[in-house]
Amino acid sequence: MLVEGTHFELKKNTPGEIGKKSIACSISDIAAMGCSAKYAVVSICFPHETKTKFAKELFLGMKREADAYDIKIIGGDIVSGKKMLAINVVMYGKNDGLNPVTRSGAKISDAIMVTGTLGGSILRKHIAFKPRLREGLVLNKKFSINSMIDISDGLVADLNHILEESKVGAILYRDKIPISTDAKKLARKTGLSALYHALHDGEDYELLFTLSNKESEKLLASKPLQVRLSKIGHIKKSNGIVMQDSKGKLRIINPIGYKHFK
Amino acid sequence: MLVEGTHFELKKNTPGEIGKKSIACSISDIAAMGCSAKYAVVSICFPHETKTKFAKELFLGMKREADAYDIKIIGGDIVSGKKMLAINVVMYGKNDGLNPVTRSGAKISDAIMVTGTLGGSILRKHIAFKPRLREGLVLNKKFSINSMIDISDGLVADLNHILEESKVGAILYRDKIPISTDAKKLARKTGLSALYHALHDGEDYELLFTLSNKESEKLLASKPLQVRLSKIGHIKKSNGIVMQDSKGKLRIINPIGYKHFK
Repeated sequence: MLVEGTHFELKKNTPGEIGKKSIACSISDIAAMGCSAKYAVVSICFPHETKTKFAKELFLGMKREADAYDIKIIGGDIVSGKKMLAINVVMYGKNDGLNPVTRSGAKISDAIMVTGTLGGSILRKHIAFKPRLREGLVLNKKFSINSMIDISDGLVADLNHILEESKVGAILYRDKIPISTDAKKLARKTGLSALYHALHDGEDYELLFTLSNKESEKLLASKPLQVRLSKIGHIKKSNGIVMQDSKGKLRIINPIGYKHFK
Repeated sequence: MLVEGTHFELKKNTPGEIGKKSIACSISDIAAMGCSAKYAVVSICFPHETKTKFAKELFLGMKREADAYDIKIIGGDIVSGKKMLAINVVMYGKNDGLNPVTRSGAKISDAIMVTGTLGGSILRKHIAFKPRLREGLVLNKKFSINSMIDISDGLVADLNHILEESKVGAILYRDKIPISTDAKKLARKTGLSALYHALHDGEDYELLFTLSNKESEKLLASKPLQVRLSKIGHIKKSNGIVMQDSKGKLRIINPIGYKHFK
């Protein structure tokens, strides 16, 4: 579910952008399973003061994004609410004989890889990202991917989801984290490091996955994707995440979790 | 989608009641198709100040209702929002070889029937109703039901949905509308008639359906349901809804629609 104030701002984002993002986020979930997205069911709560023009543009944004990935919006519902815009998209994927990739299959010694660059998505990418649907499908079709997730909570937090579900730990290589230019830009504003933003910012919607080192070498050699690929660490036996710098020095990294309840 | 201020009030309703209702509404949608409900996917937006106790009780309300109808909650997501509680439930039904009943199959001369009694649900029923899942399934299994809907917007408004989708009109028998005791109670407060409340109040979640007059006689004679059944009118060729009183006098009834946009 995407809600005003958390996933978009009515003052900053156009209705078309909000519609696009709501579909794209769900496509990204299917991408992370290495499958095709086929159908979407959309539920929307519009605040009472919503104008028809706004609703139409929101839907057009959804429709355009769905069309771009050959997805049909097949149903849903509309309600009116006092307070805020909320959008729920349920996306239906198809595995076409492939095994959907889960978060729970990471194996000890697996290479940890990620698509694209990370951090600072709040500056723009969070509302305009391209879900990695094609990439996830190619990875699942041509390589033996052991676990995969899309980065919505942040690299460390989402890696932690894989680790918890796979009951393993990880070492990250500090110098290999692909830091985006927006992470650097944001770091100048926040006073935090660009690396910090790459590790902890959410909503990059890149794919984070693990596969045997041999498979990762095959992947890096065959270059089947147009997007940047980085090998950023490996899976180890014991719990938690440790970051290793170029001199081999180790530091424990804790996920900065989103706490839903008080 | 169910949202605070529209479908429930945090000050009036317990979290358990809200959870129960969110599942029951979706069960009612499946009931209206005359099928079995099997799986639910639940998305929730919790306001930032939500306490764990509240979230647990909400979920327990959902779980108890799902269990009562042998439905499994198989997934979903949780987000945090600035402003309000919103709950989206996607319910998966199974037709078990039956044809799902739609809104578009009403035929000229069909009898119009309804389960239970109507009106005044705001006093209590809207948060505590029993979805007519078993009833819908029995109707679809044992009788030839041409169209069906659950009453969420109100008798007239939901009948109008059937009429529009079936491209037909209807005559309602004024003296046959099953008016609830809560409709009478509410009428004393609002100054409107109890009949008005039975015709236009939403959220009764009773089943409204049409079938040939012969089938309706068979249904009334065989009494397969424990709930009250009323034959409240019949389908006619021309558009709109007309109400006929005991003296044969006719009056056009307009649905009091819910306007989502300005």
